[in-house]
Amino acid sequence: MKDPKDIKKTIGSIGEFGFIEKIRQSLKTKDKSILSGIGDDAAIFKPTSGHELVFTTDMLVEGRHFDWKFITPWQLGAKTMAVNISDCAAMGAKPTVAVVSLGIPKNYPVANLETFYDGMKSMGESFGAHIVGGDTVGSDQFVVNVALIGEVESGKALRRSGAKAGDAIFVTGTLGDSGAGLHALKHPSENNPDAAATLVKRHLNPTPRFTVGRALSTKRLATAAIDISDGLSSEVHHLCDESKLGAEIHEEALPISPSLKAYCASHGLDPLEFILSGGEDYELLFTVPLTHISQVLQKVPGETGTPLKSIGRMVPAVKGIVLITRKGERLPLKAKGFDHFSKK
Amino acid sequence: MKDPKDIKKTIGSIGEFGFIEKIRQSLKTKDKSILSGIGDDAAIFKPTSGHELVFTTDMLVEGRHFDWKFITPWQLGAKTMAVNISDCAAMGAKPTVAVVSLGIPKNYPVANLETFYDGMKSMGESFGAHIVGGDTVGSDQFVVNVALIGEVESGKALRRSGAKAGDAIFVTGTLGDSGAGLHALKHPSENNPDAAATLVKRHLNPTPRFTVGRALSTKRLATAAIDISDGLSSEVHHLCDESKLGAEIHEEALPISPSLKAYCASHGLDPLEFILSGGEDYELLFTVPLTHISQVLQKVPGETGTPLKSIGRMVPAVKGIVLITRKGERLPLKAKGFDHFSKK
Repeated sequence: MKDPKDIKKTIGSIGEFGFIEKIRQSLKTKDKSILSGIGDDAAIFKPTSGHELVFTTDMLVEGRHFDWKFITPWQLGAKTMAVNISDCAAMGAKPTVAVVSLGIPKNYPVANLETFYDGMKSMGESFGAHIVGGDTVGSDQFVVNVALIGEVESGKALRRSGAKAGDAIFVTGTLGDSGAGLHALKHPSENNPDAAATLVKRHLNPTPRFTVGRALSTKRLATAAIDISDGLSSEVHHLCDESKLGAEIHEEALPISPSLKAYCASHGLDPLEFILSGGEDYELLFTVPLTHISQVLQKVPGETGTPLKSIGRMVPAVKGIVLITRKGERLPLKAKGFDHFSKK
Repeated sequence: MKDPKDIKKTIGSIGEFGFIEKIRQSLKTKDKSILSGIGDDAAIFKPTSGHELVFTTDMLVEGRHFDWKFITPWQLGAKTMAVNISDCAAMGAKPTVAVVSLGIPKNYPVANLETFYDGMKSMGESFGAHIVGGDTVGSDQFVVNVALIGEVESGKALRRSGAKAGDAIFVTGTLGDSGAGLHALKHPSENNPDAAATLVKRHLNPTPRFTVGRALSTKRLATAAIDISDGLSSEVHHLCDESKLGAEIHEEALPISPSLKAYCASHGLDPLEFILSGGEDYELLFTVPLTHISQVLQKVPGETGTPLKSIGRMVPAVKGIVLITRKGERLPLKAKGFDHFSKK
């Protein structure tokens, strides 16, 4: 419950230390591996023996990654944490502890910051991650950075570099929805509002594919994995680059949601554009040896509730990275994913 | 060696992935505990058994924490890393792996980014810390965030909360130099240039008190520690708050460098102001039981090359937090350290 008299307080009026004290109370945890959380020079935690740690970070900047016109503080908090958990999931790891740095404009309301933290905390804790520290500074733009640690059983991390020629390429869920959701936010229309609403939700509330990542790593079913944050085409390129291979992707196999199909049909758009370069789907792309395909299809969707689709296969590097169209043409698949500095 | 034709390239022209590939090559490490560095969804590393991990983060924002008029990219890189290592040092831990997030204006030169990373890498590696990952995004202001993990032998971390009434309070080095160095940068003068230059160096090139922190933790000599990032007065308050105690600080015991004394004398300034609320000294403040004082004084300065000074003692909370002046007056010591949102 927010204190009503706090609603109009700004971060400038209560100050850095006043804010930290508020947040600290709400982030206390009983997790015994966390020996000391917020309130010291650093948090202290005990890693589980027999595990390796994964370490990832993501920074989101107002006006680049999000627009307060479209996203609430709670949603942004949850999404920031989800984006980092998605990286952990792509490694097959369990997220454990996070630190959060915030650059906050002086007139930003404290009540909004609290709901922002509620969103982060809620998303983090639903996957076992606790916020154990951070930094809070003044800034012109709102900037948030999360650094997240996860644990994975020794030797079982899923890397981008492990794919072999002949492996089948799988993706979770459906692709392109988030990019189309952003399009719908930027181009409001009366046209097909239900489809637009579903896509917007996929853009604002991504779910990291944690259970799939864990199933793949613990059962050693995948040879490589990556999360789809910048659009399918550039993630396929990253995976091929790291594994020193090429890939064939079949257009007709790409998983398209009914909402994306309907939205694109009613707005004269091409779903393939969103799938290949839409970004922010946070689905997993992974490779499976032929011997493990039936086990993956039999076990993973049932155990995780996440649909999987085989979209192509890894090939030797000399064959390049190609998209095989519905008509059977082989087109070079260019990496058209989002680049934060490109001049698109 | 920079390629001369790169000098005028901007981050906008080579793009996010072009930059990441450049940095990746320069950050390769042979450290066997690092199983995978830059180039995957997350880095993978193996913590040392029998250790706990500490986890800290610091964000620096252009125009708030630094001004390109005063600091070079190399210096800023080194300082950002030093600030985080200082937090590790205050826990008595060895820094091990870091992730770095950068928000970069589009027209920022790539050559400067490379020297920035050189500075970070150089400072990190001189204390055993490797950069294993990060994120690179567009931003209006230059923003850097480092998240750093360190290791400390189980049960030996130095917390802020462990001080006992009667413990002596120590500080490393001299205080107030960095704040006066910032003053000198902002108020250029012909007056006493040697002192000013020394103070400026202290501001731009802080050295984390790593060896002192490690000596205190491994030999169990200190009951509590904190690094002095926001000025002595607010750090004494933090330590007292966490340990639920008061403190008596003796003005005449505060360690003042000859440069600070000379600079203040020739500019009509009060060194005490810089000592109590100057900020960015990155010295350590720690508490020592009476039984360990002689061991601390006999061993730590000799082994670490760092002077130590006893400046007061911890007292029960009811006695408050006081500064005992040269005249013997007891004044309440207010927490006047730097608050990023205060209206000073």
